[in-house]
Amino acid sequence: MTDKKILLGHGGGGVLSRELIKGLLLKNLDNPILKELSDSAVVGYREKIAFTTDSFVVSPLEFSGGDIGKLAVCGTVNDLVMQAAVPEYLSLALIIEEGLSYRTLEKVVNSVASTARACRVRVVTGDLKVVERGACDKIFINTSGIGRVLKNRSLSLKNIRAGDKIILTGSIGRHGMAVLAGRKELGAGFNIASDCAALNGLLIPVLKKTGAIRFMRDPTRGGIAGVLNEMAEGTNLGMIIEEKNIPLPQKVRVACELLGIDPLILANEGAAVMAVSSEGAGKVLSLLRAHPLARQARVIGAVSKKERGRLILNTVVGTRRVVDMPAGELLPRIC
Amino acid sequence: MTDKKILLGHGGGGVLSRELIKGLLLKNLDNPILKELSDSAVVGYREKIAFTTDSFVVSPLEFSGGDIGKLAVCGTVNDLVMQAAVPEYLSLALIIEEGLSYRTLEKVVNSVASTARACRVRVVTGDLKVVERGACDKIFINTSGIGRVLKNRSLSLKNIRAGDKIILTGSIGRHGMAVLAGRKELGAGFNIASDCAALNGLLIPVLKKTGAIRFMRDPTRGGIAGVLNEMAEGTNLGMIIEEKNIPLPQKVRVACELLGIDPLILANEGAAVMAVSSEGAGKVLSLLRAHPLARQARVIGAVSKKERGRLILNTVVGTRRVVDMPAGELLPRIC
Repeated sequence: MTDKKILLGHGGGGVLSRELIKGLLLKNLDNPILKELSDSAVVGYREKIAFTTDSFVVSPLEFSGGDIGKLAVCGTVNDLVMQAAVPEYLSLALIIEEGLSYRTLEKVVNSVASTARACRVRVVTGDLKVVERGACDKIFINTSGIGRVLKNRSLSLKNIRAGDKIILTGSIGRHGMAVLAGRKELGAGFNIASDCAALNGLLIPVLKKTGAIRFMRDPTRGGIAGVLNEMAEGTNLGMIIEEKNIPLPQKVRVACELLGIDPLILANEGAAVMAVSSEGAGKVLSLLRAHPLARQARVIGAVSKKERGRLILNTVVGTRRVVDMPAGELLPRIC
Repeated sequence: MTDKKILLGHGGGGVLSRELIKGLLLKNLDNPILKELSDSAVVGYREKIAFTTDSFVVSPLEFSGGDIGKLAVCGTVNDLVMQAAVPEYLSLALIIEEGLSYRTLEKVVNSVASTARACRVRVVTGDLKVVERGACDKIFINTSGIGRVLKNRSLSLKNIRAGDKIILTGSIGRHGMAVLAGRKELGAGFNIASDCAALNGLLIPVLKKTGAIRFMRDPTRGGIAGVLNEMAEGTNLGMIIEEKNIPLPQKVRVACELLGIDPLILANEGAAVMAVSSEGAGKVLSLLRAHPLARQARVIGAVSKKERGRLILNTVVGTRRVVDMPAGELLPRIC
């Protein structure tokens, strides 16, 4: 083990990432809060506070529908929302390569600022490092965030029950494909915009109005295949989804077919996968669809006692496919 | 302005950094908490909570007296302590270069873990990114942290008064010189160990026992010259320090003379500069000296109504020198 090299795949949010996290990080930093392996931690003060961190190394810095600054705010805001926390304060730490143009930095910072204003969070602390030319690629951003957990809204894998509905709030594959399309080697032929968006405006009101949501996760790296496999593994229940119900934009479908990429593993940055009680699913759906970010919200499947620990896709052509956890790094530096 | 390039100096914690922070970041992210430009933010929940972030890009990863993992924990813990906050929870975000040896990563993570255990903070959330070979230099770490602010202990530049004593808790220059000595081009001839240490065990008990401390800052990048200039500028009072009272290890002195470096601008990672009420200084000193990390604590000067906005050094040879804010990047990637 100790002679292994770190591969791009170790950052991919899939099996290799989990091995590294469980084998090295959890082993060494063990505590019950970190062990949850949520993207943010809930810590007990007199009020419950959620705390999260994310580094952004996306390349290129700008892509259709967003840039690294917008992504850094939305990503961290969304991680808090997934814990039923109202995002309030962000930190912003920049690592900048010597020689970056001021204009580029300014654009990034403006994007952070306008996104933060739009989703009503405040950047309250920061850090700035510059490294010599060649020691990083243009700019990396870390945003950490804290937020107040809604009372009586504790979302957890443990709450998921067989019979729960699986709801997806948006379409899939747009962020991953937008970043790919922004890379020189692929040209800009695809014209697909990222779904990058902060979800607090959509989801906090829904969480306040109903207790039917048991668990949420934003399907970023690893896509919905990653999140649903985590849910299957964490609950030892089956996640059964219907391909015909998964909103897949036509342009993303075409690009995936051309490139041979499974859209289920493409990153999204403006959608959530939820497990919702069967009784409450109708209400959650109608609340979601009233918001511009979730017009396409759909029940895409259900939690089952069968197929324990597995994600099953019932395809449009009537076949049944086991979808595995993505193995390694499909698309490096997507976020 | 917009055609300027980002220079190494923009990350140096000196004038260029401040220009960039004030001109770009504050302008765009303006809010009263961030405007304090402390290294951490105090945010109001039912209890006051301090929140801070820091990225670590030190090169080499290991140096005498520490490594990037120890530094990342101590640096963030110390930023919280400087706000009179008891450090409790950390996040850990790693950006790793593809091809890094597992053994190196393991060492770094072990160092994070053992330092966190030793200073009783918990890493509760994290993130892991891997970038392709050449897109970063080995490993960068971001640690953000939150802690509970001690009741009735609000430390701020605004509290500083003329007549206050300036206390330094340790010797100067060891961290900066240890990192420099670890670089290949300088050889390992100097044999100076970093002072890298978490200060919560030292300072939280002192803060609990006395309200005499008005302000504290850890003199990292920019050294005590940087911190004392910030104090002078922020209060519009004079900071008058006595060279003979500043603990400067013999090895650091020799290395500084050889290299032509002013030890006042060298980074420290295990010391604090404080403004303390004149009446309370004796008690603070005796409390500090009872702890192994502050045996050398000294009153190094005083706050004055003369020399407003300036840092003045009375030298051992009887001359008087205005010490300016360090201008740019003296020693890149020192933390």
